[in-house]
Amino acid sequence: MDFKSLALKYKTPLYIYDFEHIKEQFESAKEAFQAKKSLICYAVKANSNLSVLRYLGKLGAGCDCVSIGEVKRALIAGISKYKIIFSGVGKEDNEIAYALRQNILMINVESEEELKRIETIAQYMKIRARISVRINPDVNAKTHPYISTGLKKNKFGVNIETAKKLYIYAKNSEWLEPVGIHCHIGSQILDIEPYKEATAIMAELVKNLKALDINLKFFDVGGGIGIRYKDEITIKPHDFAQAVLANLGESDATVICEFGRFLVGNSGYLLTQVLYEKKNGNKRFVVVDAAMNDLIRPGFYDAYHEIEAVNKTEQKSSTADVVGAICESSDFLGKNVLLPHLNHGDLLVVKGVGAYGFSMSSNYNTRKRCAEVAFVEGKPRLIRRRETFEDLIGCEVECLVRGNI
Amino acid sequence: MDFKSLALKYKTPLYIYDFEHIKEQFESAKEAFQAKKSLICYAVKANSNLSVLRYLGKLGAGCDCVSIGEVKRALIAGISKYKIIFSGVGKEDNEIAYALRQNILMINVESEEELKRIETIAQYMKIRARISVRINPDVNAKTHPYISTGLKKNKFGVNIETAKKLYIYAKNSEWLEPVGIHCHIGSQILDIEPYKEATAIMAELVKNLKALDINLKFFDVGGGIGIRYKDEITIKPHDFAQAVLANLGESDATVICEFGRFLVGNSGYLLTQVLYEKKNGNKRFVVVDAAMNDLIRPGFYDAYHEIEAVNKTEQKSSTADVVGAICESSDFLGKNVLLPHLNHGDLLVVKGVGAYGFSMSSNYNTRKRCAEVAFVEGKPRLIRRRETFEDLIGCEVECLVRGNI
Repeated sequence: MDFKSLALKYKTPLYIYDFEHIKEQFESAKEAFQAKKSLICYAVKANSNLSVLRYLGKLGAGCDCVSIGEVKRALIAGISKYKIIFSGVGKEDNEIAYALRQNILMINVESEEELKRIETIAQYMKIRARISVRINPDVNAKTHPYISTGLKKNKFGVNIETAKKLYIYAKNSEWLEPVGIHCHIGSQILDIEPYKEATAIMAELVKNLKALDINLKFFDVGGGIGIRYKDEITIKPHDFAQAVLANLGESDATVICEFGRFLVGNSGYLLTQVLYEKKNGNKRFVVVDAAMNDLIRPGFYDAYHEIEAVNKTEQKSSTADVVGAICESSDFLGKNVLLPHLNHGDLLVVKGVGAYGFSMSSNYNTRKRCAEVAFVEGKPRLIRRRETFEDLIGCEVECLVRGNI
Repeated sequence: MDFKSLALKYKTPLYIYDFEHIKEQFESAKEAFQAKKSLICYAVKANSNLSVLRYLGKLGAGCDCVSIGEVKRALIAGISKYKIIFSGVGKEDNEIAYALRQNILMINVESEEELKRIETIAQYMKIRARISVRINPDVNAKTHPYISTGLKKNKFGVNIETAKKLYIYAKNSEWLEPVGIHCHIGSQILDIEPYKEATAIMAELVKNLKALDINLKFFDVGGGIGIRYKDEITIKPHDFAQAVLANLGESDATVICEFGRFLVGNSGYLLTQVLYEKKNGNKRFVVVDAAMNDLIRPGFYDAYHEIEAVNKTEQKSSTADVVGAICESSDFLGKNVLLPHLNHGDLLVVKGVGAYGFSMSSNYNTRKRCAEVAFVEGKPRLIRRRETFEDLIGCEVECLVRGNI
């Protein structure tokens, strides 16, 4: 990728996604499950850009959505409604109603209280709701506590006993149709064991439900397999699939995976320009035009992202903190990064930012959110224009004039 | 405040700011410095709503801005350009040029490299740049490491020796006019000692510069005094002022303070509606319609905010985690909060969220950002309308159609 001309054409800071990488990742996942009916539902929250969704949709992906906003995105991007799942612990009434009206594949239910609300709304709308119950298997995914979701101390899902109760309740309800089982134990997971544990627990429940004449069509194992940011040894899609299929046995259920980071994480680059080098005592800082509002992962999860200087052949490097302009010490993109001497205007590229990069960005410090570019078939294409100052104040300025405080 | 009718009128989640509180805080700060010429420059990043700025401006406040977006906000809100300061470690060329063209009070310089760029741009524009140098006094503000900014391991400011060099350089430059000295050691500070240390160091430098015939008109001591979120014992504005003035001695410089959180923090309430109660084992969760995208402080800084049920007289309470709908375990507003049993539709209010609440909010999980309401002269007034789904995809949808990926 010619980062220099991309910077010239689109300015910085800039998110760039290599769509070829997304395709390769998608195909490797799809292939791993080829022996079985499978559906890969892309976890929209990782990177919700409409063009990313459309691209994945054309490859055959469905969407795992955690808000009605994400469901709407999926529909606008052309994802078939029969490939859209609506998950999340806090669905609002109007969100549930919208999902039912759109007739999407199913709603992943996260609590007894939610199941009852879905039933009430479905009854009111005279629509039968296809549901799946999210199991909290109480297994340790051994990842960052913020992205671990399968422990009983986490807010997600219900335990096996409750799940069984909910399935029986749903089977007996005129307005509920239990069609799937769901589990998602966390994100950036590097160990296959927790998956084996979790899917074994799910499979056991599926078997027990069958004995009660509750036959589930979808076996949704969630996502969360990690990617290489630095030197992580990751789970191969093939091994993941084998772990799942071994537990599933002879069931003819369709396997659903909800991959996000795995599909888009390493497709992404954040291109940023050097503003200044400065030294405080012996400490070297490279101040760049991207900041924590553009990429919060280093500050929020203490996440590592590789950072490289663009077109710098100079060999002599020293360590520096790469920081943004925001007035907090949490505003850094990298610490102790080995970099050559840099001048005003030099370019740096932050890697592995395709997932949870732009989607978590904000306007903190009244900073405009970046443009996003897709690199597809060897060519760059703008998929989100850079915000303007007017975009930022649009919702306020009319109130200012009218309010006259 | 009648939270119930506010929820009915404006929906939830909703930010509400009590402008009377802002006024009281502003007046207490102003009064503390009444013996001296003083200017309170509100730290816009804390809460950048245009109506908040206008209200503070009418009370007499200036603005401390950390991006050109914030400078533009201040100007639109009617703040006099002679009361606007532009700070921050990463100013871009076009931002510097804009600040010079607008003829604002001064630019706070954070590095030697930046000073040289300002000079170059000023020369090109044939405008003399009024500057102030930000000192990094290397004192420990004893606050959260993310909001500590006055240690030499932090990216902010320059040490005393460098500062002296920069002042001499500026004095000798045709395009630079050194008019102030600046220091800001952090945020949510509860101990007066670091302020005494830092202002003593500043005062010493001012004296030394005077001997070199460099006479500074502005003594900018930054902000950062803490507020009470739970049971903190805070610094009184009077004591803060005394600490500053004791060091300033007989100098007739104008004292500038950059208060943000102190002015607006405890004016703010985040009103949210209960979606579900759920239990995972013994662990009780209250799922609400506000989430970490609306208020990231609990997840990001492990910040405490008091949470109360609205209009619940029931005495029996138990502890619960108050969580949002976002698919991460970092999505919580409070942990182990004592709350009565709650039903769908009950209201909770999260307190002390006037600073670094809305301003850090995002669209993560394709969630719309809240509306903001000012409570002024006993009446609510909308100061930012709730975002729509169309607002969220505006920058993308045109690219989707044109791009046809």
